[in-house]
Amino acid sequence: MSAHIYKKIEVVGSSPTSIEEAVNNAVAKASESVRNIRWVEIVETRCHVENQKIAYWQVTVKIGFTLDEN
Amino acid sequence: MSAHIYKKIEVVGSSPTSIEEAVNNAVAKASESVRNIRWVEIVETRCHVENQKIAYWQVTVKIGFTLDEN
Amino acid sequence: MSAHIYKKIEVVGSSPTSIEEAVNNAVAKASESVRNIRWVEIVETRCHVENQKIAYWQVTVKIGFTLDEN
Amino acid sequence: MSAHIYKKIEVVGSSPTSIEEAVNNAVAKASESVRNIRWVEIVETRCHVENQKIAYWQVTVKIGFTLDEN
Amino acid sequence: MSAHIYKKIEVVGSSPTSIEEAVNNAVAKASESVRNIRWVEIVETRCHVENQKIAYWQVTVKIGFTLDEN
Amino acid sequence: MSAHIYKKIEVVGSSPTSIEEAVNNAVAKASESVRNIRWVEIVETRCHVENQKIAYWQVTVKIGFTLDEN
Amino acid sequence: MSAHIYKKIEVVGSSPTSIEEAVNNAVAKASESVRNIRWVEIVETRCHVENQKIAYWQVTVKIGFTLDEN
Amino acid sequence: MSAHIYKKIEVVGSSPTSIEEAVNNAVAKASESVRNIRWVEIVETRCHVENQKIAYWQVTVKIGFTLDEN
Amino acid sequence: MSAHIYKKIEVVGSSPTSIEEAVNNAVAKASESVRNIRWVEIVETRCHVENQKIAYWQVTVKIGFTLDEN
Amino acid sequence: MSAHIYKKIEVVGSSPTSIEEAVNNAVAKASESVRNIRWVEIVETRCHVENQKIAYWQVTVKIGFTLDEN
Amino acid sequence: MSAHIYKKIEVVGSSPTSIEEAVNNAVAKASESVRNIRWVEIVETRCHVENQKIAYWQVTVKIGFTLDEN
Amino acid sequence: MSAHIYKKIEVVGSSPTSIEEAVNNAVAKASESVRNIRWVEIVETRCHVENQKIAYWQVTVKIGFTLDEN
Repeated sequence: MSAHIYKKIEVVGSSPTSIEEAVNNAVAKASESVRNIRWVEIVETRCHVENQKIAYWQVTVKIGFTLDEN
Repeated sequence: MSAHIYKKIEVVGSSPTSIEEAVNNAVAKASESVRNIRWVEIVETRCHVENQKIAYWQVTVKIGFTLDEN
Repeated sequence: MSAHIYKKIEVVGSSPTSIEEAVNNAVAKASESVRNIRWVEIVETRCHVENQKIAYWQVTVKIGFTLDEN
Repeated sequence: MSAHIYKKIEVVGSSPTSIEEAVNNAVAKASESVRNIRWVEIVETRCHVENQKIAYWQVTVKIGFTLDEN
Repeated sequence: MSAHIYKKIEVVGSSPTSIEEAVNNAVAKASESVRNIRWVEIVETRCHVENQKIAYWQVTVKIGFTLDEN
Repeated sequence: MSAHIYKKIEVVGSSPTSIEEAVNNAVAKASESVRNIRWVEIVETRCHVENQKIAYWQVTVKIGFTLDEN
Repeated sequence: MSAHIYKKIEVVGSSPTSIEEAVNNAVAKASESVRNIRWVEIVETRCHVENQKIAYWQVTVKIGFTLDEN
Repeated sequence: MSAHIYKKIEVVGSSPTSIEEAVNNAVAKASESVRNIRWVEIVETRCHVENQKIAYWQVTVKIGFTLDEN
Repeated sequence: MSAHIYKKIEVVGSSPTSIEEAVNNAVAKASESVRNIRWVEIVETRCHVENQKIAYWQVTVKIGFTLDEN
Repeated sequence: MSAHIYKKIEVVGSSPTSIEEAVNNAVAKASESVRNIRWVEIVETRCHVENQKIAYWQVTVKIGFTLDEN
Repeated sequence: MSAHIYKKIEVVGSSPTSIEEAVNNAVAKASESVRNIRWVEIVETRCHVENQKIAYWQVTVKIGFTLDEN
Repeated sequence: MSAHIYKKIEVVGSSPTSIEEAVNNAVAKASESVRNIRWVEIVETRCHVENQKIAYWQVTVKIGFTLDEN
């Protein structure tokens, strides 16, 4: 067991369909710029509404990834 | 850009199926009495359980709508 | 109307698919050892990530059940 | 089991005597304008003080009632 | 000293200039439909940004007013 | 002075009369299964409402008791 | 209307009987050393338990009083 | 670098004009009785309303000052 | 309506004059390195005090900006 | 990757020496009755004081362990 | 069992070495001016950093002491 | 006194030994990529457990550093 160091970034993913897809989209976008993502914490869930219907789900997440791996 | 004023009301939607449907039901009900809904904030999620199974999802939301439009 | 007494336990359910299934799994597991489950409160939602994808959803819930029934 | 929709309103009841009476007063006042009250959540308790004595208890509550019944 | 009952509503005021003006706008709008406003609690402050500048301040407030006066 | 270890359990007591009696009922029920209760923390107070009146008080408490005594 | 300045102090009152009496005791003790008490905010309620019964209620309050009066 | 000890006190400043002036008034009043004030933390902002207008801003602050200097 | 992805960063702006200017300074600095800023959330407000006067306002904000635009 | 289910219990460990030892003592005691402990979350740290000195550290922790392993 | 009244004060202790020493320093300083300290609650832990190293630990504590003993 | 701008990043440091060492490791890692670190705020403390013993301490911190210095 080694002493890992992680960093967390805060990202808002969105989806017209579901909370899960909004989180998936956040992780997919984050994985373009950070490697070694380890976990996600859901911080807040909101919806944007248009014409009296939910247009998309907006989920704020903290994404944790390892800083010290190669 | 004008200076909008919004009001928030707190509603609990429920659904036997999913968190998303419970929120949709809350928005649908609210849209019967308020116009110009702009966003939803999810505040709390609970489930009612019957016979050791989840009978329905109960999601408390704050619904924001514009007060100053015509 | 009688004066019920309830107990709450804290359980983390997980699922590769959705938040709802993770909660269902937590309730199913809890129902093996406690009877008379009445409600669930969702406390925290996290995801475990592997290979830059969400491997499973981890949902911490409080499960309330009646202590005084026979 | 049907999919109920509830609304919550925030009311501050007061009483010179006790927390319980302040909540009772809040519910009694609310029941003049909303039907089908189902539950109360106590949010905050304060006291107004006069002449170095508690003059009345002020209890902020959220009152939940059914929107969809007739 | 009588036992007053108050209600609180949640409103978001906005202003291009300052937090204080956004709160003033929320109170002015609320005073069109409720009488006897007694206090305001500031809940959240956000800004909408356009062209990398703050376009307006959005302040969520709870507005308390007396229910039992004539 | 020894190094005690305590456990906390979360219980919801109820009473038609008062917050204090609801907490007493929670402690009485808990004392059937745990010994050496040392303290109670009040976590949340709610009321169940029937016929527009408070039917009973529901008080969620954490009950702390000593694990290491004989 | 003048611009008052208030100070708040944090006190824990206790009573073998009720939450209200514990708060009263806190205010009575505070009034020995501070004048012009204006309000009390209840912060936390705990009980000390002896012999599996509630021995006394411990209520943490913030007490607000005017600094600038004579 | 020495090991300073600080104390924090909680004060409510008010002003008819702005949040900033209310905080300034709190610091000015506190500086009459404590020396070596180092920082202020804003805890809560409220307004007192009269005649449907904001009569004054009430800002609760924690004021930190050094205990160990001479 | 497309599925935007946003990132939030946490910045502390400061100003000798006002909360608003401190936030403006935070946004101005952030806009040197990130494009497409959409909103600001105010997280915490503190003051640095020198010679018993407020020397500058320190406002912690979260700044949200679009990740997926070109 | 399987869908694990975890339970969390809340324990208060204590030590005359350090926060770390208090947590170690909580884990050691819990490991007498639960197997497969996976993580600890520190919830609250307090000290008991005697003769104006810290007599022992009291650390409230949540201890998570696997329910579904054999 | 008598009905004790306690007061809490908020103090920030610091130490170049450890969290525990910072709390000890806070208690030692407080014991110069208040008698009968009973407990400490740790509220917040921060570090001051100089030359990219932790220069000292700053721990905000609430210190509770008996008001009514002689 | 100038108007500094700071940024905060969120890092999780770990150590098999102590909370302090975990924070030191987080600061040491962060200092490889950011200059002018000024303070650390401890956000959350957890432990990873293996074989019923604490394998390492995981401390989430926010690290504040100056953006505007050269």
